[in-house]
Amino acid sequence: MSEHTGYVKGKGLLVVISGFSGAGKSRITKKLISDYGYAYSVSATTRNPREGEQNGVDYFFITKNEFEEMISNGKLLEYNCYVGNCYGTPKEYVLRQMEDGHDVILEIDVNGAAQVKKAYPEAVTVFVTAPDAFELKNRLTGRGTETAEVVKQRLQRAIEETESVKDYDFMIINDDLDLTVKHMDSLIRDQHMRTANQVSYVETFKKEMTDLINGI
Amino acid sequence: MSEHTGYVKGKGLLVVISGFSGAGKSRITKKLISDYGYAYSVSATTRNPREGEQNGVDYFFITKNEFEEMISNGKLLEYNCYVGNCYGTPKEYVLRQMEDGHDVILEIDVNGAAQVKKAYPEAVTVFVTAPDAFELKNRLTGRGTETAEVVKQRLQRAIEETESVKDYDFMIINDDLDLTVKHMDSLIRDQHMRTANQVSYVETFKKEMTDLINGI
Repeated sequence: MSEHTGYVKGKGLLVVISGFSGAGKSRITKKLISDYGYAYSVSATTRNPREGEQNGVDYFFITKNEFEEMISNGKLLEYNCYVGNCYGTPKEYVLRQMEDGHDVILEIDVNGAAQVKKAYPEAVTVFVTAPDAFELKNRLTGRGTETAEVVKQRLQRAIEETESVKDYDFMIINDDLDLTVKHMDSLIRDQHMRTANQVSYVETFKKEMTDLINGI
Repeated sequence: MSEHTGYVKGKGLLVVISGFSGAGKSRITKKLISDYGYAYSVSATTRNPREGEQNGVDYFFITKNEFEEMISNGKLLEYNCYVGNCYGTPKEYVLRQMEDGHDVILEIDVNGAAQVKKAYPEAVTVFVTAPDAFELKNRLTGRGTETAEVVKQRLQRAIEETESVKDYDFMIINDDLDLTVKHMDSLIRDQHMRTANQVSYVETFKKEMTDLINGI
């Protein structure tokens, strides 16, 4: 994270990144972590590891029973199941990172984001989009490896997801990856200046000021 | 304003800057206007012009009757009267600037800010402070031209104002003027990325995407 003197750094922030398929949210998230030092959360999943995937690095690979136990013990910030496999964000690791002052990024879908925002209204939620619909379609069909039917389904899903955009705090148009990542970093840092994140400064200031007046 | 491609620029934003006496809010505001091209609002006042002050530049100098008429016709965004003189922000000019896409900065006190936030909840409100109480006291006593009693009154007012900080969206610590102005610019630009300010993009996107799907 770049230097920023405009606020007193307290607890870390929970940052949720979602976006249309093809908008570039994964690349943005990866760059924020690798180039700007943001913390990330390793998801838990019930699916089998693919070649080269490491437990605790790519995912925590757990059984369906363990996953269900985490749900019933409230140990997941959010979770979702698709075609028989479940994915979730373990709560403990995320909260510990935040307590240690690290801003944590979760790259999750609109359902997961809604769950997180409900549990943690102070989470900063950002939706990533492409400059326009034509550009998004180009990105999705660019490789030419998908059938028209698959492309159509993805575009249909994008339309459905537009309904959720208003529930996010911010929307960022990913026109240029490096610039977008820079703006995301700036956007996140600026959230530390929210008065809700500066309460301890105000309390200290008031106490110091009272002491100073008594000393005059 | 510096370039920012992460959003579609729509209507201008209303930005309110307040802060402790001595925190540097006037210098920040002046620099945002001169160096970053933000629009500012000329206040109306019933006090007499001082040497060198120009009508329509420094203030709109109006009579007490004209001021009262503006109040009763709802033509002021906010107003305050101190020791017999009234000051207010004419609404029409500000709204026109915003309609033209310009972000407008109002440098007003905590009472004025509360009036604006009530009428325009989407206004971005920022409170400027010094790094700590000692630094603020130094800035207020630095010139050594004030009596202990006057300094004491200003510090007492600062304590009272701390109660209002929580009502602002953001608080910025003015440690270094140039950096603070840079952060303020970034903070304001980021607010354009709020989903509430991107509604037209989302509508257009949805329409374009629907047309694209129908064309497959």
